[in-house]
Formats: sequence, structure tokens, C-alpha cells
Amino acid sequence: MPQPLTLAQICSRLGGRVVGDASTLIRQVGTLEHAGAEQISFLANPRYKAKLEATRAAAVVLAAEAESLTSRPRIVCDNPYAYFARVSQLLNPAGVPQPGIDAAARIAPGTEIAPSARVDAGATVEEGVQLGERVWIGAGCHIGRGTRIGDDSRLYPSVVVYHGCRIGARAVVHSGAVIGADGFGIALDAGRWIKIPQIGGVVIGDDVEIGANTTIDRGAIEDTVIEDGVKLDNQIQIGHNVRIGAHTAIAGCVGVAGSTRIGRHCAIGGAAMFVGHLSIADGVTISACTVVSHSIREPGTYTGFFPIDDNASWARNAVYIRRLAELSDRVRELEKRIRGKKENG
Amino acid sequence: MPQPLTLAQICSRLGGRVVGDASTLIRQVGTLEHAGAEQISFLANPRYKAKLEATRAAAVVLAAEAESLTSRPRIVCDNPYAYFARVSQLLNPAGVPQPGIDAAARIAPGTEIAPSARVDAGATVEEGVQLGERVWIGAGCHIGRGTRIGDDSRLYPSVVVYHGCRIGARAVVHSGAVIGADGFGIALDAGRWIKIPQIGGVVIGDDVEIGANTTIDRGAIEDTVIEDGVKLDNQIQIGHNVRIGAHTAIAGCVGVAGSTRIGRHCAIGGAAMFVGHLSIADGVTISACTVVSHSIREPGTYTGFFPIDDNASWARNAVYIRRLAELSDRVRELEKRIRGKKENG
Amino acid sequence: MPQPLTLAQICSRLGGRVVGDASTLIRQVGTLEHAGAEQISFLANPRYKAKLEATRAAAVVLAAEAESLTSRPRIVCDNPYAYFARVSQLLNPAGVPQPGIDAAARIAPGTEIAPSARVDAGATVEEGVQLGERVWIGAGCHIGRGTRIGDDSRLYPSVVVYHGCRIGARAVVHSGAVIGADGFGIALDAGRWIKIPQIGGVVIGDDVEIGANTTIDRGAIEDTVIEDGVKLDNQIQIGHNVRIGAHTAIAGCVGVAGSTRIGRHCAIGGAAMFVGHLSIADGVTISACTVVSHSIREPGTYTGFFPIDDNASWARNAVYIRRLAELSDRVRELEKRIRGKKENG
Repeated sequence: MPQPLTLAQICSRLGGRVVGDASTLIRQVGTLEHAGAEQISFLANPRYKAKLEATRAAAVVLAAEAESLTSRPRIVCDNPYAYFARVSQLLNPAGVPQPGIDAAARIAPGTEIAPSARVDAGATVEEGVQLGERVWIGAGCHIGRGTRIGDDSRLYPSVVVYHGCRIGARAVVHSGAVIGADGFGIALDAGRWIKIPQIGGVVIGDDVEIGANTTIDRGAIEDTVIEDGVKLDNQIQIGHNVRIGAHTAIAGCVGVAGSTRIGRHCAIGGAAMFVGHLSIADGVTISACTVVSHSIREPGTYTGFFPIDDNASWARNAVYIRRLAELSDRVRELEKRIRGKKENG
Repeated sequence: MPQPLTLAQICSRLGGRVVGDASTLIRQVGTLEHAGAEQISFLANPRYKAKLEATRAAAVVLAAEAESLTSRPRIVCDNPYAYFARVSQLLNPAGVPQPGIDAAARIAPGTEIAPSARVDAGATVEEGVQLGERVWIGAGCHIGRGTRIGDDSRLYPSVVVYHGCRIGARAVVHSGAVIGADGFGIALDAGRWIKIPQIGGVVIGDDVEIGANTTIDRGAIEDTVIEDGVKLDNQIQIGHNVRIGAHTAIAGCVGVAGSTRIGRHCAIGGAAMFVGHLSIADGVTISACTVVSHSIREPGTYTGFFPIDDNASWARNAVYIRRLAELSDRVRELEKRIRGKKENG
Repeated sequence: MPQPLTLAQICSRLGGRVVGDASTLIRQVGTLEHAGAEQISFLANPRYKAKLEATRAAAVVLAAEAESLTSRPRIVCDNPYAYFARVSQLLNPAGVPQPGIDAAARIAPGTEIAPSARVDAGATVEEGVQLGERVWIGAGCHIGRGTRIGDDSRLYPSVVVYHGCRIGARAVVHSGAVIGADGFGIALDAGRWIKIPQIGGVVIGDDVEIGANTTIDRGAIEDTVIEDGVKLDNQIQIGHNVRIGAHTAIAGCVGVAGSTRIGRHCAIGGAAMFVGHLSIADGVTISACTVVSHSIREPGTYTGFFPIDDNASWARNAVYIRRLAELSDRVRELEKRIRGKKENG
């Protein structure tokens, strides 16, 4: 059970301004629709104004322009969504792991594990591994030879990190993620594929979150790099020698093929796909399900997916996609004739 | 080895009508192409009529309208594919696990595990977990604090279920599935992403199957919900606060972004992608590889993918996609001119 | 640290011709950009000529036509990329595992494990499993009942292979891969989905590599088959009863739906998707992100994805996709009118 806080206490820690009863007690966050006594909700999008009017939340976080839309106790601030995130962090602290190495974990000789770190049952930690203060390695994780993990990082159960990788401080890595598996390096030799040893590593900065079943391949020769503050959702595939710039967020099911560089402060929608060897500028937004097939030099929002339709309409139109060039030629021909007529007419 | 059954015995259990020798012995199912002695096959699609004529199967399941297409012993029924499924279930029963907790499993204090349940080596079960009758937890699974799993559910090896989730009865969860990892909840604050604690859970109904490496995220505030009878194939990503309606089937590689609701009795083709916050009606069919970018109010079949072509033709046509609006304008202009000519002419 | 080799020693093992100082010592491979003393790099693509001119690598592998582009010690050969792969293999040998079964591995009675094989902590090996010479089963892997794995195969940690599967010699299987989970076999029966037992297996040839978190489902009745020399990248989904022909390479995030057959020597780009029951000829190349919705009879390169554009342009053009058939009709009408005018004119 989180400790309750008054609105006044919340504002003294996070800033913002209370309107209404500052002694209102808050124990937990909730949605506008379902929050009740001792719960705080938020309005970040004016679209949900009607829900604000109907809410039974004990208090609401909102922006100055929405201040008068409710008479409930409220906190007025500049960025209600971020403020709400911080309130929830206060009420739901991540907690510090109980230190200790489970008797059923397998620790190789020659590791450096901080006394405040924790390693759960069934985890295997190979030689030369370094685990920082308060690192928490979940049940059944595997940490390969020589890998280093920074302070306060948490690996949920069943994460695999291959040898020779580096993960910074405060990482959160969800179950099933695989970091440092071989990149897809193969060369064709007389009709057979031969393997190119993948001798690079993976270097992950501070404050990175990695979703469940996401894979980040090690570099072919040099390292694959994920910079500070990058947030990766589930089931993302990052190919070898990719670099993801700091503070870029990538939604689920995205694939980034080898050697592509994505800039800083980018936002990548779910299931977007990047072919290899591209360079994407800082501040680029890619819409969900877009195939990024060439480099992007300018910030902005880019999109490319086939619009959904009822199946019969789609089928009728799709055949003409394959005749677009021809259709364009016919229009040009018509234009010539009309122009000719005019000139002759 | 499955126990053999006669056609008469099969019909007495499952209904249908035998044509031909009812004492024909059946030990196993097979394809029309390769089934032989003591094997039963089926014809569900008239397209495979030629294969039926050539089959050497000991018996065949088919519909009344196909009854005369073979002289082999056969079972005539309304829904041959479902009937065949039931015959195969009879011949290949799932079996009840040997109860017991492996010495190499790690069970925390304060769990409630039915005496008929089974927990294999390397599994870790945290405090407050409840496992129903005949539940089978495979090797290396992890079940987080307070999670409850209903009777007769089976988790294959290396499944992870985070804390505070509920799985109903008769679930089948394949290896590598991750249930209850954090949803992708982040808020932008002065160029940095801050985490929104994901305090909801995952609630899964009865008779749900979940494929290998599929991920179902826990809710941000309230729960992510998978209703009864839902079937999920491999490598599906279900975002936080999604709701999948009862008896909906979803093929592999599908992604459903946060807060989208899919109705009951839907059929979702492989690699279809749903953006967030949509509402999809009951009885909707989505074709494979379709991007669902807006809500769907009416049952029906919906499609949207780019048609494949030889590379040169694709490249030739693709450039005109980016000029479609312009092409349309030019056609409108031509129409005006022609009309003008006519009027003037 | 790899053993150093002279260029002469390398050529005596791999062929090719040294130009310049044949006693140049090589310890490791490197990129043209960053290689230095005792490192060898390569030029396979003339596009990188400028990097060759600027390189500080101790030696370079290149083709005869590029021989004069540098004065550095070099090896001239027919296929520089494949040659480079082999040099890297020489310098970075995979190594033979230390034999032995870890005390924390769980081996069922009735297995056949070669004395030279190795099984790491937390792995579970069920009855009837056969492991060939020098097979290496990583930490936390699970090998189901009766599965056989050929000589020199390596499974990285947390791989799951279900019962009754066969993997050939020299396989490399990366972490999180799941081989032999149930195919997505369900039949609709009065609005409910019922399960079709998946009684086939998975048969994998020799020299196959399988990427992290890739899934290969077992067959419904007969086997799913991956032929010799196939290379699969990460997060690929192979449905039941698929057959992948020998020496085909498939990049990450590809999905292949049930019963599709892909030929030999194909190259499949990342995130391509195959619907079920198709037949793809030998020697076909599929571009990344292409939806393969019909069978392909002829070798060649095939493509189909929506071209990316700035968001506003995409939105403007996308609406006309849904009116393409109508636009085509209008152009036909204009053509008729013009022709009519001409004839009448």
C-alpha cells in the first residue's frame, strides 16, 4: 500500500499550485472514469473534458487553461502528463531490492558484484561480470562473460545478456529481452552462406528501458550503441552496429536493420521498419507501420502505410496500383491531345 | 501410442454418421496425401477433391455434399474440420501431469498450490501465488507475487508471468511468452522521457491459448484484459489496457497498441497492426498485414496492404503514389476542359 | 586474444594472392574506418573507395579490380566479403566447449549425451534426448522428450526445443528461440475455437543458424522442415508445416504463415510477410517489408511496400488510393470522349 500524501505535500515536492482543499489525502492514481476517494487523476488532452466533468476522483492534475473546468481539488501545472507520472512515481516507488545472492544462482569465480546487489534463483553469472550497487538480476537471467551492468539497474526474470556487453545505470530490462546475440552477418560463397564472427559488443547508456522480448544484436566488428535515456518497447529488433541516439523512444514491434543510425529525440511509432545503412536526423517522428527505406536529413513527421478499406474496395483499387505509371502516361497523353486541340482549334 | 478406436466408437462419442465399414480401426490422424492404414483424414475444402480421390487413408471425415466423392469408409458430419479436431483430441489426449513440485523448483512461502499441480525444475514461484488443480508450470517458468492461475492450465517452459496477474482455467501458454511486463508508459518532460509506473495487471479468461514469445503488457492504471476463449498465435504484442473480446483469434506477429479494444468473435490475420485507442466491433475480420488506423464500427472484412510486384514494376509505380493527388487534380482539370469544350462546342 | 597470422599464412590457408609485405602480422579484423596496426579490413563495395584510401589498416582484402586503389599490404581474391569472413573465422575460432554436465543441470534418465557434449547450469533435458559430439546446451535451455541434436551444435542460454524435434549438425541457436511449439491449429465450432492437436515435429538440417527469439512451430500432422544451410535472423516466425529450402537466408522480423514453401537459395528481406499455403520458387529475392500474398513461380526480385513521405503529403495522397478504380474509370471516360470527338470532329 503506498503512503498517502496531501496535495500540499505533493506540490511541495513536485511544484505546481493547489486549487481547493490542499489537505486532500491521495493514496493512489486513477483514471478520470474510475478514480474515487483518495485517488488522483489527470487531464492532459482537452478531448477528455467530458470525463473530467463526470469524474469522482479526489483530485485532478491539469493545466491552467483547464483549471476552471472542474471544482474538485486540483493541482495546476505546466505539463500535467509528466506531473502525473511523477505523482505516480511518488506513490508507487520502485523500491530497493533486498541484497543477496540466492543459493540457487550460479556465480562464476572472478566476478565483481556489489554487496547491495541481488541475484535471484536460477540466474547464471559468468566470469568477469561486474554488477553495480543495487543491481537486481531476476530469476533465470544469464549474464555472459565480462559484461558490466551499472548501479540501480534491474533485469526482470529470463533476460539474457551475452558476453562483453555494457549496460549503464538505472536500466530496466524486461523478461525475454536478449542483448548481444550475434548480428546477422553472413557472406555468400558459391551458393552457401558462411558466418562472419560477430566480435563487436553492445553498449547501452544510462536510464534506458528495454521491453519484453526485444533483441539487440552485438556488432559485427565495432559495437551496437544505445545512448542515454532511450526507451524501447516490446518485441523490437535492433540489428548489428545500429546506433540509437539519446532520448529517442521506439514503440513495439519496430525493426532496425544493421548499421542504421537513428538520431536523438526521435519518436518511432509501432511496427515501423528501417532498412539498413540509413541515417535518420535528430528530432524525426516516424508514424506507426512506416517503412523507412531512405535516409532522412530533416526533422519532421514521416509516414507511409497503405490505408485500410473494406476488403472489396481494397481489392478493386489494389489492381490499379500496379498500373499507376500507365495511368499517369494516359493522362499525359490526354493533356497533350487537349492542348493540341486547343492549339489547332 | 494413441489407443485405437473404431469409426463406430468415434461416432458414438462425437456424433456424425458412418458410411462403409464401421469397424475400421483408427489410431491416428493424417493428411489426405500421406495417411495410410489406421489413419483418418478429412476434406473440409472442396478444392482438395483430387487429393480425396487419391487418398489411401483408412477413413475420411467429410460433409454430406462430399459423401459420394470417395468409396472409402467415412464419417459424414456438418463441420468436418471441427469434427476432425475432435477426433484428433480423442486420439491425442493432452494428458494429466504427474503432480509434484520438483526439488529444483523454488517456491516462496505463502503460496497456495493444489496438490494435483506440478512445478518443474528451475521454476520460481513467488509469494501469494495460487495454482489451481492440475496446473502444470514448466521448467524455468517464473510466476510473480500474487498471481493466480486456474485449473488445468499449462505453462510450457520459460514462460514469465509478472506479479498480480490472473490466468483462467485451461490456459495453454507457450514458451517465451511474457505476461504482465510494464506497458510502454512514458511522458516527455523537457526532452527526457520519464516512466509512468504501470500499476494495472493482466486478466486472462478461461480457455485462452497464448503462443510462443507473445507478450501481453500489464495495464498502466487499470487492467489489460483477454476474455474467454481468445486464441493468440506466436510473437503477438498486446499493449497496456488493450481488451480482446471473447472467442477472437489472432494470428502470428500481430501488434495491438495501447488501449485498443477488439470485439468478440473477430479474426485477425497475421502481422496486422492496430494503432492505439481504437474500438473494433464484434465480428470483424482483418486481413493479414493490414494497418488498422481507425476504429471499425461494422462487422465485415477489412484489408490494406501494398500489392507485391516484380521489383522494377513496383519501383516504376511507387513514384506515382506520391503524385496521386496531383494526378487526380489533372484529371479533374481535363474533365473541366472537355465539359467546357462541349458546352462551348 | 586471437593468434596472429602473417598474410602469407592466411593465403596459404585460404588462397588469394598477397601484394606487398607478406610477413605483415594480423591479429584481428577491423573496419576500413577504424582498423589500425595488426588489423585487416576489406573492400567489397566500390562505394567505399574513399574509405579505402583513408584507411590505416595493416592490410586489406579486395578484388583484382581494386588492387591498385591502395598501396597497403593486401590480399587479392575473387570474393573479398567471403574471404574476409573466412579470415575472421581463422582469427576468432568458435572454440570447442569444455565437456561436462553441470551439477545444476537436470538430465532425465534415458538420454544419450555424447561424452564430449556440455550442458550448463539450469538446463533441463528430458528422456530420450540425444545430444551429439561437442553439443553445447546453454544455461536454462530446455530440450523436450525424444529430441535429437547433431554434432557441434550450440544452443545459447534460454533456448526451448519441444519434444520430438530434430536439429542437425553445426547448428547455432540463439537465446530465446523456441522450436517446436504448437502451430496455430484451431477450428471454429459454433462460435468457439477448438484446438487441433499439433502432432508433427520440426526437422532442421545441418549448418542452420537461428536468431534470438525466433519461433519455429511444430507441424499439425506432418513436420515443419528447415533444410540445410538456412540462416534465420532474429524474431522470425515460422508457422506449422512450412518448408524453407536449403541455403535460403531470411532477415529479421519475417513471418511465414502455415504450409508455405519457400525454395532453395532465396533471400528474404527483413519484415517480409508470407501468407499461408504459398509456393515460392528457388532463387527468389523478396525485398524488405513486402507482403507476399500469392505464389511465385519465377526467380527474380519482388517488392511491395508503401513509399514513405512527409506526413502531410502522405495524408493528401492516401485518400486517392481509395479512389484509384474510380480515377481510372474517369480517365477511360475522357479517352472515349476525346476519341469520339476525333471521330465526330
